[in-house]
Amino acid sequence: MQELNFIEKYIKLISKEMDKELIIHDPKELYEPISYILKIGGKRLRPILVLLSAELFNLNLKTILNKAIAVELFHNFTLIHDDIMDNAPIRRNHVTIHNKWNLNAAILSGDAVLIKAYSSLISDNLDYSKSVIESFNETALKVCEGQQLDMNFESEDKISLDKYIEMIKLKTAVLIGFCFKVSAIISGTSLSNRNSIYNFGLFMGICFQLKDDILDLFGDEKFGKKIGGDIISNKKTCLYIMAEKYSNLEQKKILKNIYSNINITNEEKINNVKILYKKIKVEENSNKLVQKYYNKALIELNKVSVENSRKLKVKLFFDQIINRKI
Amino acid sequence: MQELNFIEKYIKLISKEMDKELIIHDPKELYEPISYILKIGGKRLRPILVLLSAELFNLNLKTILNKAIAVELFHNFTLIHDDIMDNAPIRRNHVTIHNKWNLNAAILSGDAVLIKAYSSLISDNLDYSKSVIESFNETALKVCEGQQLDMNFESEDKISLDKYIEMIKLKTAVLIGFCFKVSAIISGTSLSNRNSIYNFGLFMGICFQLKDDILDLFGDEKFGKKIGGDIISNKKTCLYIMAEKYSNLEQKKILKNIYSNINITNEEKINNVKILYKKIKVEENSNKLVQKYYNKALIELNKVSVENSRKLKVKLFFDQIINRKI
Repeated sequence: MQELNFIEKYIKLISKEMDKELIIHDPKELYEPISYILKIGGKRLRPILVLLSAELFNLNLKTILNKAIAVELFHNFTLIHDDIMDNAPIRRNHVTIHNKWNLNAAILSGDAVLIKAYSSLISDNLDYSKSVIESFNETALKVCEGQQLDMNFESEDKISLDKYIEMIKLKTAVLIGFCFKVSAIISGTSLSNRNSIYNFGLFMGICFQLKDDILDLFGDEKFGKKIGGDIISNKKTCLYIMAEKYSNLEQKKILKNIYSNINITNEEKINNVKILYKKIKVEENSNKLVQKYYNKALIELNKVSVENSRKLKVKLFFDQIINRKI
Repeated sequence: MQELNFIEKYIKLISKEMDKELIIHDPKELYEPISYILKIGGKRLRPILVLLSAELFNLNLKTILNKAIAVELFHNFTLIHDDIMDNAPIRRNHVTIHNKWNLNAAILSGDAVLIKAYSSLISDNLDYSKSVIESFNETALKVCEGQQLDMNFESEDKISLDKYIEMIKLKTAVLIGFCFKVSAIISGTSLSNRNSIYNFGLFMGICFQLKDDILDLFGDEKFGKKIGGDIISNKKTCLYIMAEKYSNLEQKKILKNIYSNINITNEEKINNVKILYKKIKVEENSNKLVQKYYNKALIELNKVSVENSRKLKVKLFFDQIINRKI
């Protein structure tokens, strides 16, 4: 998309700053895994959002860059530790740290990345730093709570949609909310603007995670992405919850059977689930849910009192996230 | 000791504040392990040092209390994660979190305690907060580096005394240094005082760890403490390094044999090591090393330019740590 050229500029800024985090100090056993995970990158979604919010509130991008890096470092800390907890072998097409090195390397390098996130967060002399750190702490603790809820779900039989939304709100959306809020705080905009843009971020985060759930099974395969990972690992994502919610008794039985059948291959399992989900219209219903939170998000964005033209980039980027196919 | 009555007052203050951290919020699976480890306590050495330093620099104890709690929380975070990495079954006579709950509970609750440490660190409106957090970050990262070096030592054949001192400096002493420094920063005392008291803390921390190593084998058993834990787990502590340093060829061979003999009981192993160490005068040589760092510490304390009477409590407490039998 031509209109999204500004993202490239953002990513350049972010990459240049992230490069500083890639230096391998001694002891190298600690810093090598850090450099490894930061190098394999990812979409850099969160720092992009910090910069988007900075432009929205008329902040110089360089002023806010260290906060953007802090959020990206924090996100990587959660990935390293979550991958241990979820027993994940692969992250961003690369072997996870606890598999490439070992458990201890993953625990300790994760810890160090969290500390580095705090270093980045305070690496300037801006005012508002107390509210920034307070808000960051609050967010960070909520993300831990979200991860705990997610793990609890593994042993719970039935998860309501409300409980699921609450979980992804904590695990994913509050950090997206923080990305927007941190720029708002530092810009010194009104409290009302700060709250609206935070809520916008929250709803955007929920949309983002729901879309992620949907794309796991219904995404484009052509870019080499593996389809159905959540099904193979028996994750109760939005799709599964929707399937349970909208299925009749017989369909519920079929769903249960597919998931408990250990005599079928992964491919068969994914296919069977997909056929069933299509009957129950799981994708359509999930997309309706995305739309619901998309609308909620836009209501919050509308409340933000800045020139409408300033909101254009945020809106464009949001749409891109919602309409992505992979 | 009559003279150490002030410690009781400190501990009361600290305990009252720590109680606030024991509340079990939802999800309880996250907060129960946190409450558990904080409840079983320990000596509260580090927050005591923060308060001692506060009195030295004429600070109101209540002003500094949240920093004392932050350090204690940080210390507990390291314990939770180190116990996973060291595969430790017991901590302070209680089952470790990863054994009582599971690995994931220990990783996640450790993460949350680190975040809570930062919350405590900034929970007031004092000036100097940027230097406090910067210094805390620097310390925290060094502690991670120390833990990594300690783990590296497991697979290294020969560790020099210098390398060992460098490791315990990072893993243990820098945090003790920070305890003294944080009060110095907040009191607004001179940079020279700040540096001297930090160095004092560093040397005290080294003494503290060396003494810990010595007491593992040569401590009093009468308080139910298990003797020789480091020997059973083949830890290369100061005693082992001293034994290697001061033994002749034959003694080196005996030492190697004891450690590689899998046909003796733990009790026999500890006894054999103890007999050999007595011949090589390992305890005396280790105590000389403690004395060396004790003297270095006192030189730094002398440099601190405050009334000498103010230094009395610090000195008394330091002596108590160095002369302890368990």
